[in-house]
Amino acid sequence: MELMNARGVKDFPPEEKIARQKLTDSLRRVFELYGFSPLETPMIERYDVLSAKYAGGAEILKETFKFKDQGERDLCLRYDLTVPFARFVGMNPTMKMPFKRYAMGNVFRDGPIKSGRMREFWQCDVDIVGTTSMLADAQCVQIAQRVFSELGLDVNIEVNSRKMLDGIIKQAGIPEDKVTDVILEVDKLRKIGATEVKKNIQALDIDSSAIEKLMKIISIQGTNDEKIDALKTYLTESTSLEGLKEISEMLSYLDARNITFNLSLARGLSYYTGTVFEVFMKDEKIFSSTVAAGGRYDNMIGEFLGSKNKYPAVGISFGIEPIMTVLSSLKKSDMTTKTVTKAYIIPIQTTKECIKIAEELRKSGVNTDMDLSGRGISKNLDYANVLKIPFVLFVGEDELKKKKLKLKDMNSGKEEFLTIKEVCKKLK
Amino acid sequence: MELMNARGVKDFPPEEKIARQKLTDSLRRVFELYGFSPLETPMIERYDVLSAKYAGGAEILKETFKFKDQGERDLCLRYDLTVPFARFVGMNPTMKMPFKRYAMGNVFRDGPIKSGRMREFWQCDVDIVGTTSMLADAQCVQIAQRVFSELGLDVNIEVNSRKMLDGIIKQAGIPEDKVTDVILEVDKLRKIGATEVKKNIQALDIDSSAIEKLMKIISIQGTNDEKIDALKTYLTESTSLEGLKEISEMLSYLDARNITFNLSLARGLSYYTGTVFEVFMKDEKIFSSTVAAGGRYDNMIGEFLGSKNKYPAVGISFGIEPIMTVLSSLKKSDMTTKTVTKAYIIPIQTTKECIKIAEELRKSGVNTDMDLSGRGISKNLDYANVLKIPFVLFVGEDELKKKKLKLKDMNSGKEEFLTIKEVCKKLK
Repeated sequence: MELMNARGVKDFPPEEKIARQKLTDSLRRVFELYGFSPLETPMIERYDVLSAKYAGGAEILKETFKFKDQGERDLCLRYDLTVPFARFVGMNPTMKMPFKRYAMGNVFRDGPIKSGRMREFWQCDVDIVGTTSMLADAQCVQIAQRVFSELGLDVNIEVNSRKMLDGIIKQAGIPEDKVTDVILEVDKLRKIGATEVKKNIQALDIDSSAIEKLMKIISIQGTNDEKIDALKTYLTESTSLEGLKEISEMLSYLDARNITFNLSLARGLSYYTGTVFEVFMKDEKIFSSTVAAGGRYDNMIGEFLGSKNKYPAVGISFGIEPIMTVLSSLKKSDMTTKTVTKAYIIPIQTTKECIKIAEELRKSGVNTDMDLSGRGISKNLDYANVLKIPFVLFVGEDELKKKKLKLKDMNSGKEEFLTIKEVCKKLK
Repeated sequence: MELMNARGVKDFPPEEKIARQKLTDSLRRVFELYGFSPLETPMIERYDVLSAKYAGGAEILKETFKFKDQGERDLCLRYDLTVPFARFVGMNPTMKMPFKRYAMGNVFRDGPIKSGRMREFWQCDVDIVGTTSMLADAQCVQIAQRVFSELGLDVNIEVNSRKMLDGIIKQAGIPEDKVTDVILEVDKLRKIGATEVKKNIQALDIDSSAIEKLMKIISIQGTNDEKIDALKTYLTESTSLEGLKEISEMLSYLDARNITFNLSLARGLSYYTGTVFEVFMKDEKIFSSTVAAGGRYDNMIGEFLGSKNKYPAVGISFGIEPIMTVLSSLKKSDMTTKTVTKAYIIPIQTTKECIKIAEELRKSGVNTDMDLSGRGISKNLDYANVLKIPFVLFVGEDELKKKKLKLKDMNSGKEEFLTIKEVCKKLK
């Protein structure tokens, strides 16, 4: 046996898992503050379900881990949390709508491994199904605002309407069969600039007057409100006017401080039918890809379920890996502390008494450990040091007699003699 | 596509996941109070590792989901958390000992499905590696005491020493090659009683005087201390004396209130080398299997790693499914509330103001939702009712003018008019 991990998966040792748990706790707290409930779906799904039309599509299916059970049933590991969510909605037809759920957990992709791209990684999604109201879209953006403000990260949230963008492209006179390709190019505006985008669209053999019309509209500058006003005068096509109305309504519900109406944002190809959002670090030197993203997808669930019912939906997905990368590069996340233990007791021939003292501390809610190996003081201090336990308590016969314990602050080196009650109070 | 789960796996809808999260939160809190750190290992492992000698063994391997990645590497889904833990220990040779970790997560077994036996289920383990001290064993038992006392469950913790039991069997004169079979029978004493056990051992073609000797010792009655005293006079074999010394030491560290020294407890076959523990409901009519169990396994990790180093270890595993079953049958766990939302706002033509009011409540830490669909009052009340949201706020023009909101307690039906501040204070 070779002692190693499978390719593309990794262990999270305590120092990393503690930091990740802090993040996932914080996400969960915000999701619950906004009225979302947890849903857990299994890692294993029927291949049938994940390979269905309108599920994840051919590209993702190539990267799906597939296997059989002993009954020769075709199974696979989930590649995202959205298709299982859609399956759950379909299997629970009496569910009260809107249904607001969050889900966090591993998903699996048997793809090429680049930096930051693992074969097993966490996804973290919130979705609302069952309402077309822009209040739902606004709530997704509010959650992003709250999450990143609680994490102390300065982000910019770009929003747009796919419905509007589709209409703008049609209005510019671009032929129906080229719309998809053009959207792909427009989506790059942010990264490569207008000149390059124009060139790429020209290469698609599109009439230059159409390109000019398109570029003129998506290049409108100004505040969000100024863009809305300008668009109101430019747009003629009914789809784009509907899209504009929707996004104006959503923006009217939001505190605009870190929201940018970006007319060229398209967020990939199919799937999205209305609002789209992408969250970036304000300082893109820190991290240039999205840290969260989402949008409205009113057709996917209904199509996937092959249902005549409508399942309008909107959601946002938070990137656990990108956010951890940002937190750690900004030193906002400590990835060196190997324990959440607050107090470490070193008994000096007082083992049984120390067990009781440890229990006292725990009763007050202080995470407490004690020497389990009967080591000497210096080895114990070394242990506490390496694990980065902030406080050490020395308990000898003398301390027991005086009913005062020696508490050492491992950061400052300061020592003081305190009663158990005082220790509890200080460390709580 | 057939809209269904894979065989043997299930969804946890919000009402179940909320209850499960409450349990796992509570377990995590206790583990951290006792100085354990979280470790996350991947779901996917190399087949090579999980099928190694001294890993889970042939029986479990038959039930292991196996597959290949695109590079034709042999992979599988983990069947427990212990073998990955041993792998992690082996891959991190500079780790400070003792290493105390907890882990919670899915494991997978492609086996027959009985009631309560799924193909994908949660395990929840705490383990200490790197010390032979009985303080570590005592800590595992303390954790069980604390966990079940916090859950409000009245349990009995049975403890024994495998080392001692092995010695007792040898001392009784049972031939070496029958020890394993005899232990299996002795382990059933609790369930089937002494007469049946005797019969079964006789069927193994064992000398009746040996059986008498064995039964005499393992049938010793009395308090834990009385049993220890009696054993001291009976035991002659050095292994069993060592085992007795260990378990006496462990018991001396513990509050004995719900601990029973059960001389026939063996806890399966291989693997365990010292103390063993099994936790049962005091009232076995509620649930008759173990809700948690563990023990010392000083050889497994070293053997698995093929190492000359010693990796003494002890741990305890909590059964999420059994505990959930108990909690729900005792009505200690509410499996009907579909949300953790505390307040639900019904705007009466006051949408934008309600968005602000919702944000105020959330700032005070109150989980708050509001109508996202523009429904009428009665439909909204029905929604809050079905989801079991405890409080509803009505906000009309009148309420805004008077700066008092109408708060309805959905359980009592009581209504009162309160300022936002008063609502926050009340619901916090």
